[in-house]
Amino acid sequence: MVDTNTYDVIVVGAGIAGLSAALYLARQGLKTLVISKDLGGQLLMAGTIENYPGIKVTNGADLAMAVEDQVKTFGGEFRYGDVVNKIDKLEDGKFMVSTEMGMKYICEAIVLAFGKIPIKMGVEGEKEYDGRGVSYCTICDGPLYKGKVTAVVGKGIQGLDAVLHLAELSPKIYYVTPTRLFGDEELMRAVKNLQNVEILEYHKPVKVLGDGAKVTGMVVKNIKNGEEREIKVEGIFVELGYEAKTDFVKGLVDLNDKNEIIINKIGETNVEGIFAAGDVTDIPYKQAVISAGEAVKAALSAFSYIQRRRGRKGTILGDWKKTGKVKEEKPSLKLGF
Amino acid sequence: MVDTNTYDVIVVGAGIAGLSAALYLARQGLKTLVISKDLGGQLLMAGTIENYPGIKVTNGADLAMAVEDQVKTFGGEFRYGDVVNKIDKLEDGKFMVSTEMGMKYICEAIVLAFGKIPIKMGVEGEKEYDGRGVSYCTICDGPLYKGKVTAVVGKGIQGLDAVLHLAELSPKIYYVTPTRLFGDEELMRAVKNLQNVEILEYHKPVKVLGDGAKVTGMVVKNIKNGEEREIKVEGIFVELGYEAKTDFVKGLVDLNDKNEIIINKIGETNVEGIFAAGDVTDIPYKQAVISAGEAVKAALSAFSYIQRRRGRKGTILGDWKKTGKVKEEKPSLKLGF
Repeated sequence: MVDTNTYDVIVVGAGIAGLSAALYLARQGLKTLVISKDLGGQLLMAGTIENYPGIKVTNGADLAMAVEDQVKTFGGEFRYGDVVNKIDKLEDGKFMVSTEMGMKYICEAIVLAFGKIPIKMGVEGEKEYDGRGVSYCTICDGPLYKGKVTAVVGKGIQGLDAVLHLAELSPKIYYVTPTRLFGDEELMRAVKNLQNVEILEYHKPVKVLGDGAKVTGMVVKNIKNGEEREIKVEGIFVELGYEAKTDFVKGLVDLNDKNEIIINKIGETNVEGIFAAGDVTDIPYKQAVISAGEAVKAALSAFSYIQRRRGRKGTILGDWKKTGKVKEEKPSLKLGF
Repeated sequence: MVDTNTYDVIVVGAGIAGLSAALYLARQGLKTLVISKDLGGQLLMAGTIENYPGIKVTNGADLAMAVEDQVKTFGGEFRYGDVVNKIDKLEDGKFMVSTEMGMKYICEAIVLAFGKIPIKMGVEGEKEYDGRGVSYCTICDGPLYKGKVTAVVGKGIQGLDAVLHLAELSPKIYYVTPTRLFGDEELMRAVKNLQNVEILEYHKPVKVLGDGAKVTGMVVKNIKNGEEREIKVEGIFVELGYEAKTDFVKGLVDLNDKNEIIINKIGETNVEGIFAAGDVTDIPYKQAVISAGEAVKAALSAFSYIQRRRGRKGTILGDWKKTGKVKEEKPSLKLGF
């Protein structure tokens, strides 16, 4: 069964970038659908956020829910629990977006904002025990392993952070890291001072062990001397960084050598009608407000593109509505004074 | 008397861009000074804002004050009421920033975020009566003219908005516009339906009249037939658009044909150590969250630049601090996994 639906714009991803793009697109009156595995994306890994301009203290989940609510206020639609796996450009310039669950959508423009995903260990048992002892988000799942022995497979600051986070929950943590300890001086000092952490420098994971239902341990290998060792753990936290999973748009939009989508200053990719924003792009900085701003640029560029296709001059709704008689004012994008 | 002060970074401007840049710079531990005529810049012209991701409803002034407060939390300093009028690159790669009031500051990096300013009418009496009947912000100053006859000298959507705003305050409004009425269809209809507005299409201002203390009227001219006419008004609202006043950096940083500062995707200008963000740049979209995001990119680029100058690898504080033992975690800018 294939269902076909038509939208003005489809936003792929519901992190801060996808949500911010959808907010502007929906507010411009475009029929907008957001397709995403989940709400929040990497934002969920953020605990307290204290540098989002205008909000003194928030957290990733609250921020995501707040923007989702704004999107809904303006009529934006969501399809959660599904993943876009194919985009085809049609002859009339529109796009067909296909999902893993077999849905097909037609739209005039697309905003790619599906972020990055955690880098996997790439070892036996990892996939089998994903969610049953193997986690890619220490801050999300750490509390579930309170009182249990755990391992962090990680690198750099991200790995150190995870260890420090678990240190208060776990009686014993193995820190499995493939190089010497590195990252931030202060964090390294803090980790070294912990009584309940065994640091396994120059070690890599070999195999995840389990009883069929959940993780019971893992095999790690000393890279220097080749020695293998089994450690008994119930939780394995993978903190090896993030990668852009852009395979399904390879050949469609230009990617850089990190597989990130190359965009210009206003969120356009090399393909007319396809825009991108956030961590999936080649913008190096990973900050919520940057992703939000980038996404709004992409959204406004998408809106202008659709208006041009329809033979209209793009008028962009302003940042604000004034008090007074007008319901919404509409300062134009590039008002020709 | 010349005072010399040294900072790591000087931010020129305290609109949403300048404030957001300062927030990140100060939070990175850099000694940061914001120099600006006022707090908020064009943000103050925004009434209700309902599309800032994460904040359902706010307004320009509240948003500005909220970010200013965040900046102060991290130790950022402000110098209000003064205007930067000269930037010199020194032999050691540092900069000297001079102000109209004769202050001089030395810094390693600069973020230019001073926005745009309203386009003037360019007529006799305009400067003399600025603030004494001549206003460039209808939404800010309109309420001061409640019950008084006013004129809007404007164009397009911006002009129409101003008229609609005044319509509820002023018994009679002249709308002086140099072309035929244009802008948004809905706004034009609304303006035409107002009983208390006299629309003077194809008219331009010639002279502001006053009694020495305040505005008493203005002379306008019919562009088509050359006829001049005197209208009695106590308030003149100029809504002719905005321009980048970048003369003082001309020859230092590259500008486009609209005198906007040309930046790349991460907020760098053509001059090492000088960064820019917001409405003063060649990014075409005028939205608070875009300016905020652009400013944070510029700030992080400035931080990296300073770290490189000091022979360090730039480590960027993350969006968030996690719960746990660490006071602040520090995912790095481009963590080399």
